[in-house]
Formats: sequence, structure tokens, C-alpha cells
Amino acid sequence: MQTNLAGITVAVTGGDARFPVLVKELIAAGARVNVLGLPVTTDDKGVTLYQDIEGCLAGVQAVVLPILGIDDKGLLHCVLSEQTYMLTEETMAQLPKGTHIFAGLASPLLKQMTSRLELRLIELMKLDEVAILNSIPSAEGVVQMAMELLPVTIHGSSAVVLGFGRTGRTLARLLGAMGARTRVVARKPADLARVTEMGLIPVALENMPDCLGDADVIYNTIPAPVLTEEVLAKVSTETIIIDLASDPGGTDFPAAARLGIKAVLTPSLPGRVAPIKAGQILAQPVIRLLAEQRGS
Amino acid sequence: MQTNLAGITVAVTGGDARFPVLVKELIAAGARVNVLGLPVTTDDKGVTLYQDIEGCLAGVQAVVLPILGIDDKGLLHCVLSEQTYMLTEETMAQLPKGTHIFAGLASPLLKQMTSRLELRLIELMKLDEVAILNSIPSAEGVVQMAMELLPVTIHGSSAVVLGFGRTGRTLARLLGAMGARTRVVARKPADLARVTEMGLIPVALENMPDCLGDADVIYNTIPAPVLTEEVLAKVSTETIIIDLASDPGGTDFPAAARLGIKAVLTPSLPGRVAPIKAGQILAQPVIRLLAEQRGS
Repeated sequence: MQTNLAGITVAVTGGDARFPVLVKELIAAGARVNVLGLPVTTDDKGVTLYQDIEGCLAGVQAVVLPILGIDDKGLLHCVLSEQTYMLTEETMAQLPKGTHIFAGLASPLLKQMTSRLELRLIELMKLDEVAILNSIPSAEGVVQMAMELLPVTIHGSSAVVLGFGRTGRTLARLLGAMGARTRVVARKPADLARVTEMGLIPVALENMPDCLGDADVIYNTIPAPVLTEEVLAKVSTETIIIDLASDPGGTDFPAAARLGIKAVLTPSLPGRVAPIKAGQILAQPVIRLLAEQRGS
Repeated sequence: MQTNLAGITVAVTGGDARFPVLVKELIAAGARVNVLGLPVTTDDKGVTLYQDIEGCLAGVQAVVLPILGIDDKGLLHCVLSEQTYMLTEETMAQLPKGTHIFAGLASPLLKQMTSRLELRLIELMKLDEVAILNSIPSAEGVVQMAMELLPVTIHGSSAVVLGFGRTGRTLARLLGAMGARTRVVARKPADLARVTEMGLIPVALENMPDCLGDADVIYNTIPAPVLTEEVLAKVSTETIIIDLASDPGGTDFPAAARLGIKAVLTPSLPGRVAPIKAGQILAQPVIRLLAEQRGS
């Protein structure tokens, strides 16, 4: 990372296994970092540890909140700390207008608070640059899960990927490269053309139910109820469904259980399967945006 | 499987999770199967269960022993049964000369017995058709292991594959397809040329030590002491070594431990990670050879 953030202080408050990596990347980019609720030491020059959120936020030019930000009561998501911390509007009010507030996704409360205080909220998970890079560990985590669940290899298996968004595209390419017979269900003709160009098998959305019968694994990335009871009736009990779509997924899980079909909803995978890589992915736009602000 | 083995009876004695699949494949090919020491039911027409090895072998045209065959005392490897069974030369002597005896690999005792009795011993694991197909679940099992051990993704990781035999070739192709920066260390110029053709990075064996320093994972497939203490001294403590070469591997494990390098020797992977696929792979040459014998 060449960017020089010298003179900039960033508060990193809570978060998961990705956040100590993010702190290291900020330090490497030249920033000073105030840290709260993370197992970070002061071995890296520029790190200062805080026990209270007011102290941690004092005098900073940017704040990085956890991926899930704060809940609807203002509680910070701090999975690596035994302490709990509340982020109140009074505390936030000490920040100058226009201060960057980074979170993965913002709760309605966080949106209201930053809007009222005229802070600049950036939802990292909504940035294409983050979502596309995050789709790599997500896809690998899903393949790892499929390997654990399947009694056959990915190579030669019959895979159906529902959806061709950022994650569907990465997953389909990976499965195809690993030798799976990969069909991709998509709605848009342009997406179906791209599937064909990639050497995979395109299936128009209206033909989806007919292509599920011989699948070893169905990977759903569509965040809508696509695998309904009616559709699941066409799925073999030997098939495994891995649903990557954001909670609650696109599968009627009770119906799948009734039909004897194994269906699992994946947790957020990047932070679990590849925390270092996922931390680096998060750090990139934070550093880029802070450097751009300083340059402007 | 189109082959018709009608009228042929095969004894399947002991074995691991692959062997119930092998029994099913033999039945599907038309054979009758006498089974000993496996969790198989008589639901499939043509299966007969035995409690004693003499009865199981009576009147059969072929015998399939476990992958590890018998040990140096004659004990059958029966990991799925609580019973133990001894295969003695007297029992084997009831088989007509020329009877096919299949095992994964044969112990010296099994070689002596079959040679003295003029039985036709086939070591399945030494057949190219088995070894190449087995390299697929092996390579996937190794990638799964690497995913579990690495805090970064396979995509973008720096991989060094030592050796370009049947397994090295499959693993290198898979890693390259998944987006790893894949170097392959080989001795023969023709192999280095093939590595280049595959879009991977060739490294001549004499240059191996110099290419290990920045590897995230070193995958060894060479069944000789290649990762000696002297070579390991050039490996980072952040690197993971996965040794696939047959026991005892090609790594000086005590030296790796002293140097603080994580190094693991993989167990036999195909039967663990993909028992159904691995059972089908074993069944193919058994069925082919029995059909050929009948045709001749």
C-alpha cells in the first residue's frame, strides 16, 4: 500500500477477526489508529488503545465501525471483546461535520444519526470494489462447505448456480474451473450470453425447475423466494442446497426439511474463511477514500 | 456401467467406506457378490452376506481385498467391522489357479501367497487409470485442507507444487484454475515445458530452494527427502507445508517443528473426502478386467 495517510487519525471501534488486519493496514498506510474493543497491541507504532468510546473518538478524522455497525439501540458489534459499548448521538456529536463514518451496512439508527449530524456515512459492503473482492472468499467458502457435505468430488459434480450477480458470477467461474458441470440460472439475456461465453451452461429463469432434478448441489445467490415448496418438489433428496443469499435466503427451509432435502444457509463467509484477506479487502476503500479526501 | 458380469460371482472381503459402493457397482454390472465384514444389506438382489471367510470365497471367480490387503500376519483390513478375519494360504488354496485377486497395494505376504498359488494379483493403486482418477479427490482434499489452514484465499495465494507426477499435475491444474499463483518444481525438461503450456510457472528442481521463500503453501508430491532441514531453513514460518507423498512423505517433520513451520502429512484422501466417487473409481478396472477375462 503506497498511500500516505500521515497526520490522519482513524478510530477503529470493535468488529471481528478482520479488524485487527484493517488496523495493521491503516498503520502501514501511515495513519495513527485509536482502537477500542479489539485484541490489538501497541507493538505497531501509531496504535493507541482506549477503554472508552469518547476518548477513542476524540480528535479523529474518520471512524471505522464494525461490519454490522450498531444495532437499533446503539450497541456496537464487538465480538472480540467482553466489554459492551454504546455509541450515542452525543458521542458522535463531538465529530466535525463531514467526518467519514465507515460501516459494513448501516442500521436505520446509524443512518439517522449520521444524517442529523451531517457525517459522511460509507457502507463498505455496498461498494462494488468490496463486494466483488469479497465474492472470492465467499465462493471459496461455499466450495469448501460443498466439499465437506458431498460424497463426490466437485470435479464431475452437477452444479446449478441460481443468480449471476457479483457472487453468482465468481462462484460459477470457480466451479467451472474446478471441473463441475455448471449450469447458471439467470433472467437477463445478456447474463445468459456471458454464461455461454464462460463455457458454462445457461438456463433461463423460467426453465429453472426443469434443470434441478439431477443436481448434486444447488447454490442459490438470489435474495428472493426462488426455491419454493413447488420448486423443491422437483429436487432429489440426494441434492444439497447451499443458500448464499443474505438472510433469510431464497429457500423455503421448512418445506425442504419436510421433503427430506438437505438445505443450509451460509453465514457471512469472508471473515470466517479468510480473515486476513477479508481485512485487507475492507482496508482498501477506507485508505483510498481518506487519501482522496486529503488530496481534495 | 454397461458391462454384463452375469454369471460371475465376486467376493468382497472387508475394506473401507469405498467398498459398499464397489459392491453396488458390481451388482449394477450384473455380478453376484459375496460380502464379508462390510455394512451392506441384501436389499440389492445378488448380494449374499457371510460371517466366515471360507464360505465367502467358495466358488467365486474373483476376490476383492481391502485397499491395504492383508498385513504381514494375514489379517484382513476391515475398518467397518468389529470382527477380525485372517486370510490364510489354506483358504486361498481353494481358489482355482488364475483367479483374480484385487487389492489396493499388496503386502509381501500377499505377493508370496498369490505367487505360490498361481493366482492373478492386481494391485489397483498401481494402475494408471486408478491413480489418475484418484488424483482428483486427492487434489480436492488437499485444497480443502489448505482452505481450512490458510487465513487467505486460494485465489491470489502463492502456491509451490513439488513434483509433476499424476497427483502433482492434477493439483497444479486445480490450483491454477482457482486463481493461485502456481509454481511447479520438476526435474524433467518435458515436464517443465508442460507446466509452461498449462499457463503455470515452471521451476527447475535445482532452483527449488530459491522459490520457497514467499510461498503461502508448499504442496509436496515427491516421495523422497526433498524438504530437508537445509531447504526448510529458507521457508518462512508463515508458510504451510502440505505433504501428499506416500508415508513418510518428503518433509523432515522434526526439523520443520524446530524451525516453527507448520507441516502436515495428508492421510489417504480419496476414501475420506469422496467415498462414493472413490468407490466408483475402484470398481471400474475390476469390472473391466473381469469382463475382459470372460470375453477371452
